[in-house]
Amino acid sequence: MTLTLDSIQSFHAPRRVLMGPGPSDMHPRVLTALGQPVIGHLDPAFAGMMEELKLLLRYAFQTENALTFPVSGPGSVGMETCFVNLVEPGDKVIVCRNGVFGGRMIENVERCGGVAVVVEDAWGEAVDPQKLEDALKAHPDAKVVAFVQAETSTGALSDAQTLIEIAHRHGCLSIVDAVTSLGGNPLRVDAWGADAVYSGSQKCLSCTPGLSPVTFGERALERLKNRKQKVQSWFMDLNLVLGYWDAAKRTYHHTAPINSLYALHESLLMLKEEGLEQAWARHQRHHLALRAGLEALGLGFVVKEEARLPQLNAVHVPAGIDEALVRRRLLEQFNLEIGAGLGPLAGKIWRFGLMGHSCREENVLLCLDALARTLAEQGHPADGAKSLQAARAAYAVPNA
Amino acid sequence: MTLTLDSIQSFHAPRRVLMGPGPSDMHPRVLTALGQPVIGHLDPAFAGMMEELKLLLRYAFQTENALTFPVSGPGSVGMETCFVNLVEPGDKVIVCRNGVFGGRMIENVERCGGVAVVVEDAWGEAVDPQKLEDALKAHPDAKVVAFVQAETSTGALSDAQTLIEIAHRHGCLSIVDAVTSLGGNPLRVDAWGADAVYSGSQKCLSCTPGLSPVTFGERALERLKNRKQKVQSWFMDLNLVLGYWDAAKRTYHHTAPINSLYALHESLLMLKEEGLEQAWARHQRHHLALRAGLEALGLGFVVKEEARLPQLNAVHVPAGIDEALVRRRLLEQFNLEIGAGLGPLAGKIWRFGLMGHSCREENVLLCLDALARTLAEQGHPADGAKSLQAARAAYAVPNA
Repeated sequence: MTLTLDSIQSFHAPRRVLMGPGPSDMHPRVLTALGQPVIGHLDPAFAGMMEELKLLLRYAFQTENALTFPVSGPGSVGMETCFVNLVEPGDKVIVCRNGVFGGRMIENVERCGGVAVVVEDAWGEAVDPQKLEDALKAHPDAKVVAFVQAETSTGALSDAQTLIEIAHRHGCLSIVDAVTSLGGNPLRVDAWGADAVYSGSQKCLSCTPGLSPVTFGERALERLKNRKQKVQSWFMDLNLVLGYWDAAKRTYHHTAPINSLYALHESLLMLKEEGLEQAWARHQRHHLALRAGLEALGLGFVVKEEARLPQLNAVHVPAGIDEALVRRRLLEQFNLEIGAGLGPLAGKIWRFGLMGHSCREENVLLCLDALARTLAEQGHPADGAKSLQAARAAYAVPNA
Repeated sequence: MTLTLDSIQSFHAPRRVLMGPGPSDMHPRVLTALGQPVIGHLDPAFAGMMEELKLLLRYAFQTENALTFPVSGPGSVGMETCFVNLVEPGDKVIVCRNGVFGGRMIENVERCGGVAVVVEDAWGEAVDPQKLEDALKAHPDAKVVAFVQAETSTGALSDAQTLIEIAHRHGCLSIVDAVTSLGGNPLRVDAWGADAVYSGSQKCLSCTPGLSPVTFGERALERLKNRKQKVQSWFMDLNLVLGYWDAAKRTYHHTAPINSLYALHESLLMLKEEGLEQAWARHQRHHLALRAGLEALGLGFVVKEEARLPQLNAVHVPAGIDEALVRRRLLEQFNLEIGAGLGPLAGKIWRFGLMGHSCREENVLLCLDALARTLAEQGHPADGAKSLQAARAAYAVPNA
């Protein structure tokens, strides 16, 4: 049926359970905050809310960095903001690639006129610190090291603290992709000395998609101040953005996404109420239960145990199973969204997200039950009862 | 009092009436759409909604352009998207400047490595077509003409149709800023042959801020295809964005701002229900009433009659009046937001917006009454009764 203008009606969103790579389920409190009437971006009430929001973001990032704010765009704009401000034409940047987002970083470096030196690790593996060390020895003129702490495309966690330490030892700034890690697993910007970090609103913060929290430390600001050329993007130029988010100046720069910022304020407040370390522990606890249940279904993890992200569980699709059909059935029959593989892993893996508000027991149990039934439909010997039992046993372990 | 983390509570937005330069009041239907649960950006339900949204946007822009979609960022990102895709290093671009946003265009040209030739008109005046003609004769190697149809900083409307015609006659593409015009006054992308147009969600569409509807015609796509260099922005590269918004491809590019797009769908549907020409007429009708009331208060317009935007009414602040105090009193006593002047007009003018859902009789009358009382407080001889009478008389004119 051809779509016509006159046939269009109000859109009613279906009720899903989001256990893919993000967005994650938004808590009713956050949805309520989002739907409040809009006010002006220069309204004193908005300015006060933003000061609180910056404080809450500093807590989430564990930083005292003054320049900590949400970029008015999705995570890719946060990423590009880091690169266009810190990379100048001719600059050599070491990019660690072990999934989709490292590849995107290379694109960013090159479009800034920089030279990307790529440290490759297999998809599904953590970044190897020794390879970074070797690359920096081979390229003593490198100025920046960029890597992804939590690779959403594979579920691999890299050792951010060590990678930052190596970068600094070789006189490089660090750019850290924390899109999926913020709020889900330990990230300590100040203790680790990360120089520029960007994240996303729709992963472990369970806020509406479209905002990218970022934070920049002193060394990054120093680099920015000493640039020879103007930042190539007007919108992302931190020199201009600074005047906007600085409470003392508040120069007009652009109209902020007011409603989305209401929502981010509320989701960060909920994170603070729970406590950051408690949130990290919660992600780990439900991950262990989901893992027990998935393994009881005979599914093997892509990432080895020591580098597994609790909030993104990638497993191999069993032989003979139509992976796209399974995802479609889960969505249609159970309103359950899980993620597919990307790039070289397309068609080969599923990605189960346990992010933010999506990360709770009822979702783990729903997911295991729905998956077992769907696999059984396709003739895969999946024992749903055993899977649920394994998950419940994991939950029963004290302090797990 | 110093703000501390522990003192932060849920934010409750005050209820304002927004009669500044945007954002405008969001209709309850649009707020309700916004607050629906989030779904995945690859969900078939979301994909279906987006196809409808693109159709609705084509209606609003009056175009059949296939590449018509909302950029996931505010109007400044829409602007930058036009420039980074259509301007290459060394390209000469004629920028018509008659306010803030023309100045921002110059910044964009230069950051793309282009050469900006500026056609200047005074703030508050429309772009002079003869000056553009002269500039194009003096610069036959120019490749692009860029101008603002509705200058939000002054309230001046330029003759987009004529300016586009001149650009084409000299072999140039046209980039049109329609941030404040879309939905508020006539804009006919196909009939006028505009090549690249960007707008904003929070003006006459009365949607949540943070989205920038854009449309690109065949000539613009041709220029894009024949670029010698990669687009300098990864996020804004239309070659990549194309694969995302194309229903047949739907390649992962970024996580769309799902909830905001629900809201845009609803606000565009409301525009379609009202009818585009009816919406233009509504803006004109309320403008005439507001104008009658403002003039009865002794306030003079910045822009001469033939170039006045109905949706943005800029008036001179009377001598002896503390303009910032008036705005503060309006906000505190009446929850009414109006706009201040920018740049050379800072401190000298007020800007009264009548955009989208904010553009209705009750707001016009509230505004005139509140303004009269506030001016009287400051000793200005403002006759509120006469002002309201003038507005009501304007409303009484048939077909006005």
